[in-house]
Amino acid sequence: MAEAGTRRRARGGGGAARRAERSAVHFDSARFITRNIPNFEILNEEALEVIEANAETVLEEIGVNFVENPAALKRWRDAGADVQGERVHIPRGLARQLCSTAPAQFTQHARNQDRNVEIGGRNLVLAPVYGPPFVRDLAGGRRYATIEDFRNFVKLGYMSKWLHHSGGTVCEPTDIAVNKRHLDMLLAHMTLSDKPFMGSVTEPSRAQDSVDMADILFGGLNDRTVMTSLVNINSPLTFDATMMGALEVFAAANQASIVSPFIVGGAMAPVSIAGTLTQVLAEVLAGVAYSQLIRAGSPVIMGAFVTSIDMNSGAPTFGTPEASQITYGAGQLARRLNLPFRSGGSFCGSKLPDAQAGYETANSLNMALLSGVNFMLHACGWLEGGLVSSYEKFVMDADQLGILHKLAEGVTVDENAQAMDAIREVGPGGHYLGCAHTQENFKQAFWRSDLLDYKPFETWDEEGARDTQALAAERVAKLLSDYQQPQIDPAINEALRAFVDKRKESEPDSFV
Amino acid sequence: MAEAGTRRRARGGGGAARRAERSAVHFDSARFITRNIPNFEILNEEALEVIEANAETVLEEIGVNFVENPAALKRWRDAGADVQGERVHIPRGLARQLCSTAPAQFTQHARNQDRNVEIGGRNLVLAPVYGPPFVRDLAGGRRYATIEDFRNFVKLGYMSKWLHHSGGTVCEPTDIAVNKRHLDMLLAHMTLSDKPFMGSVTEPSRAQDSVDMADILFGGLNDRTVMTSLVNINSPLTFDATMMGALEVFAAANQASIVSPFIVGGAMAPVSIAGTLTQVLAEVLAGVAYSQLIRAGSPVIMGAFVTSIDMNSGAPTFGTPEASQITYGAGQLARRLNLPFRSGGSFCGSKLPDAQAGYETANSLNMALLSGVNFMLHACGWLEGGLVSSYEKFVMDADQLGILHKLAEGVTVDENAQAMDAIREVGPGGHYLGCAHTQENFKQAFWRSDLLDYKPFETWDEEGARDTQALAAERVAKLLSDYQQPQIDPAINEALRAFVDKRKESEPDSFV
Repeated sequence: MAEAGTRRRARGGGGAARRAERSAVHFDSARFITRNIPNFEILNEEALEVIEANAETVLEEIGVNFVENPAALKRWRDAGADVQGERVHIPRGLARQLCSTAPAQFTQHARNQDRNVEIGGRNLVLAPVYGPPFVRDLAGGRRYATIEDFRNFVKLGYMSKWLHHSGGTVCEPTDIAVNKRHLDMLLAHMTLSDKPFMGSVTEPSRAQDSVDMADILFGGLNDRTVMTSLVNINSPLTFDATMMGALEVFAAANQASIVSPFIVGGAMAPVSIAGTLTQVLAEVLAGVAYSQLIRAGSPVIMGAFVTSIDMNSGAPTFGTPEASQITYGAGQLARRLNLPFRSGGSFCGSKLPDAQAGYETANSLNMALLSGVNFMLHACGWLEGGLVSSYEKFVMDADQLGILHKLAEGVTVDENAQAMDAIREVGPGGHYLGCAHTQENFKQAFWRSDLLDYKPFETWDEEGARDTQALAAERVAKLLSDYQQPQIDPAINEALRAFVDKRKESEPDSFV
Repeated sequence: MAEAGTRRRARGGGGAARRAERSAVHFDSARFITRNIPNFEILNEEALEVIEANAETVLEEIGVNFVENPAALKRWRDAGADVQGERVHIPRGLARQLCSTAPAQFTQHARNQDRNVEIGGRNLVLAPVYGPPFVRDLAGGRRYATIEDFRNFVKLGYMSKWLHHSGGTVCEPTDIAVNKRHLDMLLAHMTLSDKPFMGSVTEPSRAQDSVDMADILFGGLNDRTVMTSLVNINSPLTFDATMMGALEVFAAANQASIVSPFIVGGAMAPVSIAGTLTQVLAEVLAGVAYSQLIRAGSPVIMGAFVTSIDMNSGAPTFGTPEASQITYGAGQLARRLNLPFRSGGSFCGSKLPDAQAGYETANSLNMALLSGVNFMLHACGWLEGGLVSSYEKFVMDADQLGILHKLAEGVTVDENAQAMDAIREVGPGGHYLGCAHTQENFKQAFWRSDLLDYKPFETWDEEGARDTQALAAERVAKLLSDYQQPQIDPAINEALRAFVDKRKESEPDSFV
């Protein structure tokens, strides 16, 4: 497993340095995944061609709406689309042609360059949960999220070995004014972690703040891509001015956007898999094409947030077979478009980090790995259909992500792996525990959970018969207690804080 | 989804029949799965050829032990093997050639012919947990299993929609003498369920009892295959007299055996994936070939019970990436041998049906579906590394098995599924909840859990904020309360009981 081992050290010299060294917390950080296994292809060639042809029909005949965005309509008209009011009819083939300038793979830079990630190709980059207004932990139950929670989740993400990315809105800091919270969120990602992060999309001006702060953090961007941000499409077939405004800012600055249909099947898309894939593809084609109209060659990701609905209660459901089928198919469509693909996550509908959460999440994570996802948002911490960021589930899911790393390595069949000498040495009726091959290989042989219970029943029982949530709560406390802030240039730190202060002072608080 | 809907009715006429009809419990029973999706192939052609060549080398150079079984050694010698003491060296190609007479697919008959299953090909048959000496439920905790527990699990299996098979030792009835409990277990499967079942393998005489009781149940077997039984190999490379004795009885009667290496990687096989697959293949080749020496053409399944070991504690671990890699590879090897493949299950190491159990189980179930498993033992109810049959986890897992059914259907791309009229009808900014396509299709569109929580937070909270285990406990109680015994010919029922009584009287109780 390719890993960039990292070791954090306190600064200073002499006795203080030695004391700091002794108390420094060591933790590992895995390189992003590069798959050495095939993707699972659920659609055959004929099915793919039908869906692609239908998507072109949707774009041409039905069209898409670009709402309250005259400049976008002009861009589309200039590019050759037939614009009627806010409805953009895109001639067959035009959107796909425009998409062809988007890169198949790009580097997202982190301020610690060991944390740079490659998005696209056979790679898989893992980022934490995004968007919940609530948090939950074992001790405190369910409550509105605060900036303190936000910072805690950034710290947990920073210390999670299998997480490559700090994410974006790891929870909504509801105690900060709506028009200012993006500044505190960005500051937290930039200063409490050195992993790559996402920008703000909730207003074009906040996207610009993101670019301006990144420019400070990186000492000038110089067209480097340092943010990957989430631009949802208002499915069906609607691109609103807020999200498109953010995309425009990011594309112009060569920052990546995830153009992502947000689909609850049966509500925002047809109840059928093929129909949903048709709409997803049409929406992505239009959105990605638009990003290339802003700046040809700017990095962009084909997104697909897809789940189904429970037709009894109307609730979105997760870890379902239909979500898997759609995601497998969407991955195939993304590869044929030669675009990086975002989907998957630690999805579940459960209110608690219980067995339901485990089943649904594992269904989603396995499907995401095999469907060829390149960027997995929500890879840990998601609870209750995305309403809740769970402390315990964050570390539970983050632990499971190690499984994806190992699975993706595939199977080695070199001489050492063939182990013929071991089979000869042990022979019928023996055991391998002490043989030479085992001694030489056991340390790397098997993935091992850092969290789950592997103890004998009696030991586990004596230690309190704890379930996974209880073990996870202990781990959360340990990680937050061990956390040490990564070094940052004091001048940059100061400049970021000054920027935030100034922007906060420039307008009154708004909570809507 | 192809389903044989079943409806149980009480017998009798007139008012009693009408009253019984009103109180009869209706439940569905799904047909076994026939995959309409590809298998996941983790090994390339070169890797497969290396492993197959190495397995032949193992059989020829190292050989396998057939222990305390002179008749087996004679059979091997007559077939052309080089037998040295109890060690059988099988010349390259001989075992594979002998395996070629085993059928690629066979029917296992149930006494209710609507429950017959096809094992092999693109099919997947699901059977419950096998072997645990303990049971656990929410109210009673963990305790030794009894025959009452055994009967309860048979009843739960009978009423589980997605379970096609009644299984075998759903738990060990430790309150019955070791030398007699197989009789009570068989009687329970035969009379409390009408799904197909497994025979006893713990002594050749008990295998013969299984055949004799099946002969009574089916009114004469006439070479019909009515049992699929579990014959474990003492890995590495050892075939003991008990298991081989059972296999001999079953093969002679044209009953199916699962020839199954029992591998905890690092203990009974090398720590490497390729080495383990080599040993698994060698063991299966020898065991299946031996079944064909008993009776060419008798049905047999390539088994692989594979997990890895935690090198810190020595505990077997479940739902791991290594287990998935081995199972994917073993599925490929089985298909190249043209044999039905048994692997997978609701595996977990957790002591409780908690999140760990959910993650590990879902990892295992997803992997089993995609690796092309044809017969999945342990598909529900497995807890604590197989030491415990869990009531709650039985119904939790059994619910999840519905996901496999839906996933296996694949994606339809006919005109209705393309849903172009729906996309036209709804258009940009609309919603699909009420459109004609949704109305016509929503009932079959999405798989729906019968167990998991999909309720709004407030409702769930008011109803007691129950976790999955609590919901499952409620379902267990409901199923056991609703249970009604399937009809059986009273004469057959009487003959089975008489056989059991007579056999029990014929020898004293033994608890070793």
